[in-house]
Amino acid sequence: MSKSHLIYMPLGGAGEIGMNCYVYGYGPKGKERFIIVDLGVTFPDMDGSPGVDLIFPDISWIADRADRLDGIFITHAHEDHIGALGLLWARLRAPVYCRAFTSIHARRKMEEQGQDASHVKVTSPWPETVQAGPFSVGFLPISHSIPESSGLVIDTPEGRVLHTGDFKLDKTPLVGEAYDPELWASVARSGVKALVCDSTNVFSKHPGRSEASLGDNITALIAQQPGMVLATTFASNVARLRTLAVAGVKAGRTVCLLGRAMQRMVDASERSGVLTDFPATVPVEEARDLPRNSLMLIVTGSQGERRAASAQLARGKYLGMKMKDGDTFLMSSKIIPGNERGVFRIVNAYSEMGVDVIDDNDGLYHVSGHANRPDLLELQNLVNPQIVVPMHGEHRHLREHCKMTEAAGRTSVLAPNGTCISLSFDVPQVVEYVETGRTYLDGSVQIGALDGVVRDRIRMALNGHAVVTLIMDENDDPLGDPWVETMGLPETGRSGSPLTEVLEADLAKAVGRLPDKILTDDAKLDEALRKAIRQSANDEVGRKPEVTVVVSRLS
Amino acid sequence: MSKSHLIYMPLGGAGEIGMNCYVYGYGPKGKERFIIVDLGVTFPDMDGSPGVDLIFPDISWIADRADRLDGIFITHAHEDHIGALGLLWARLRAPVYCRAFTSIHARRKMEEQGQDASHVKVTSPWPETVQAGPFSVGFLPISHSIPESSGLVIDTPEGRVLHTGDFKLDKTPLVGEAYDPELWASVARSGVKALVCDSTNVFSKHPGRSEASLGDNITALIAQQPGMVLATTFASNVARLRTLAVAGVKAGRTVCLLGRAMQRMVDASERSGVLTDFPATVPVEEARDLPRNSLMLIVTGSQGERRAASAQLARGKYLGMKMKDGDTFLMSSKIIPGNERGVFRIVNAYSEMGVDVIDDNDGLYHVSGHANRPDLLELQNLVNPQIVVPMHGEHRHLREHCKMTEAAGRTSVLAPNGTCISLSFDVPQVVEYVETGRTYLDGSVQIGALDGVVRDRIRMALNGHAVVTLIMDENDDPLGDPWVETMGLPETGRSGSPLTEVLEADLAKAVGRLPDKILTDDAKLDEALRKAIRQSANDEVGRKPEVTVVVSRLS
Repeated sequence: MSKSHLIYMPLGGAGEIGMNCYVYGYGPKGKERFIIVDLGVTFPDMDGSPGVDLIFPDISWIADRADRLDGIFITHAHEDHIGALGLLWARLRAPVYCRAFTSIHARRKMEEQGQDASHVKVTSPWPETVQAGPFSVGFLPISHSIPESSGLVIDTPEGRVLHTGDFKLDKTPLVGEAYDPELWASVARSGVKALVCDSTNVFSKHPGRSEASLGDNITALIAQQPGMVLATTFASNVARLRTLAVAGVKAGRTVCLLGRAMQRMVDASERSGVLTDFPATVPVEEARDLPRNSLMLIVTGSQGERRAASAQLARGKYLGMKMKDGDTFLMSSKIIPGNERGVFRIVNAYSEMGVDVIDDNDGLYHVSGHANRPDLLELQNLVNPQIVVPMHGEHRHLREHCKMTEAAGRTSVLAPNGTCISLSFDVPQVVEYVETGRTYLDGSVQIGALDGVVRDRIRMALNGHAVVTLIMDENDDPLGDPWVETMGLPETGRSGSPLTEVLEADLAKAVGRLPDKILTDDAKLDEALRKAIRQSANDEVGRKPEVTVVVSRLS
Repeated sequence: MSKSHLIYMPLGGAGEIGMNCYVYGYGPKGKERFIIVDLGVTFPDMDGSPGVDLIFPDISWIADRADRLDGIFITHAHEDHIGALGLLWARLRAPVYCRAFTSIHARRKMEEQGQDASHVKVTSPWPETVQAGPFSVGFLPISHSIPESSGLVIDTPEGRVLHTGDFKLDKTPLVGEAYDPELWASVARSGVKALVCDSTNVFSKHPGRSEASLGDNITALIAQQPGMVLATTFASNVARLRTLAVAGVKAGRTVCLLGRAMQRMVDASERSGVLTDFPATVPVEEARDLPRNSLMLIVTGSQGERRAASAQLARGKYLGMKMKDGDTFLMSSKIIPGNERGVFRIVNAYSEMGVDVIDDNDGLYHVSGHANRPDLLELQNLVNPQIVVPMHGEHRHLREHCKMTEAAGRTSVLAPNGTCISLSFDVPQVVEYVETGRTYLDGSVQIGALDGVVRDRIRMALNGHAVVTLIMDENDDPLGDPWVETMGLPETGRSGSPLTEVLEADLAKAVGRLPDKILTDDAKLDEALRKAIRQSANDEVGRKPEVTVVVSRLS
């Protein structure tokens, strides 16, 4: 029997910011027992995944080995760590461990997909641990932008691994546990084999700032505003919701929370006991009747999401509220790269209404939830691991994290999605590369990102679409001329005649020239019609559409 | 006869950064004579304009009055000021005035669209002027990120208007004319009615920096790099191309320019005499044989454009060159909002190759071509206009520019696209709002942005597409069952059977239930088939596709 080894393999999150999914294994090669850390999603965009509902990692590799899976551990309740739990659980069928606040979201995710929520087990923080096969796992509190974020202490027969999850070093996070260097030092004291560490903010050079640095700035800002104040942040950033609400109250405002996701997060925080001192708020029905200059709305939609409250208000009335000249929109958030267009669409709409927009360009009204470069080094020095394994980042983040680590005299390893690393040696070794990828939730169906479905949709968006129908009689002669319908093509082109008429005339000519051996061969006839219509469209409107050919034979 | 008035109306550029087009008019209402300043384009994106080739302003208003148009003035050769000239000239047919370097590009734009390039007239800088109807117009040199950018001195019977074009206050721009405060002060001395002013950088709080501040930083950076250096910037930023090339030579490198647009800009600059001291470069055929650490490539593609040299090199070999571990990619440019995804795709590809990427986060390797907030105030104070009219910006930029101006004690007016402003009073007045919009170059056809063509393409991208064909016999009975073809839909759904088979079975059932009055009515039959397939698809794959129905009647 071959020697046991300890392996680490990211299936998602090490190649993007989003859809985190990491596998740890221990045992003889081919007989390892596994745990999964996080099952997250990432979000589609028009460029690469139009019409897709959600994106998550292709977990085929671990699903094929689900009989050897001993547990699924969720570090925190952000969608990029928990969002795929309900969608993928049926292929994994292992117990799900997380902390109390996270479990409220985990259970909802399970129920929404028709799974039994009792598979979600609430775990108390370190020093409590869960035994999962050869692993003993504890949840080590650390600060982030959602309550009860935790690193994982993963004890293995080959030593201790610290998996940070998403984190920042905030000693005054205001909601949820503070970063406690004593606690982390105590866990690291016996020696840490590997620190598997968040890379999101590796390019941010200054030490991270605390949530506690914002309140006075926001209070002062709100106090100066002549009209209603509308503030937005991520719904899951419960500490920020509290910071905003407290600042509003201090500035003499009545606070109203708008947006279902936001209300749900506050409720979950209160139910799980992590939030006890959220200021009193009023429902929107009461808010409508208050003077504008005494009111503060906190709303969803910091990333320009079209259906969120901030976007609805930018388009007009929402739940009886309306923005006016003299009001203020405070963006207590950063713009995630790629969301700029959507966010600025809203900002410009507010500008047209005469609403002042305050963003975070001055760094006064937002702090990041991730550890910056100096913070990453600080944690490395505290933990003093044998190896640093950067995770959660695009390739450029992982690579920079490695460079920074090695410049500090430590060993690191660059392990993008699908890289199976053995941690059983002083220097980590690549055991194998596994095929990974993305799965799309497309309507109600899960499809592979490379199945060609979305590629066809992109092609129709770029090229338009034409349908050619032709009926062939019992003698394999065309019964009438080909018929054309187009979608997403101009109605007229070069000649000024209706495009469909031009295409039909050209196709009729082309069909008239086709010899019997093509007219009798479905594949060749399809190809000839396709080629003819693409050529005709290119002549007339400068574009070769996607084509569907339907030949009906009356035989 | 009614009193003459002086009007200003943006048709593009005052509501976006891009597609600049401004109209000035003078005369009795309804009989004004006009000039146009700039005819620019903006670029499509997958979110809002998939498959579109170029976007430019809907110029119908001025095209309908082309008999009263006395000239088209192009301030500089950036695409967002000159790009639509050839495409729109046939509807305007007025002489085109610009400076020598700009004229090279203007003539090319005309020729590419089959227009007579001799309509482009080269104009010398101020104090030379062109008489165009009631207007006397001079080109007033100012610095920007392309040679021979000019403001316009527009003298009218009601006084002098200064139209800045795009500009920055750079006294050492290295290529092209410097900002000359004495010159601008001399033009302003007799009094300026209105300063119509670029708003692009109104949110940038620090004074703009000079092109001359970059060279030493870039030289020092290049000197430290162990491998080949690949640098990118906008092809039209001739001064930056020179700064990069000079820095490369100073650092001991042989320089090679890659990318057609870049070579064309350098050629035009040399031909028009604005560039005389560009360092010697080698063609790529020679570059291939040089040691990597002695080579610097300057390439197109600073915005992640898929076909530009930087993107080609990120995908592999390009013109015999290939990036390697230890090489460096220097982005001497900013990322235009909305282009983040494309740029980071390239950065991550380079990261996978082991190429170090240096961006402009530290502000060491790029300066903007636009006047920042303090620079805008400096120019206002120098020119001392009666009225400031912010142009070239999204609504948020224009509004902020107005607020800043008014806070400084001046009069300003917020005039987004389609706002016709009379400048004949001390306080500008809105004369009328004109319907404006966007025109798409779609393949070889110009279509209106709201024609529905692109909307249909977006819908196909989001929902997929299905074709239903049904043949009806001479008795108006279905001849066989409906036939379905899909594109951009999953192959299987809930049931596990092929989707087209499920859809066809459901449609056959639906058709079997249809009464004669529907079977004999084309519109009703179409609607019934459409509704049935959308319902069936929604049940099976959770998505309602776009549908094309083709019913053929053998009668």
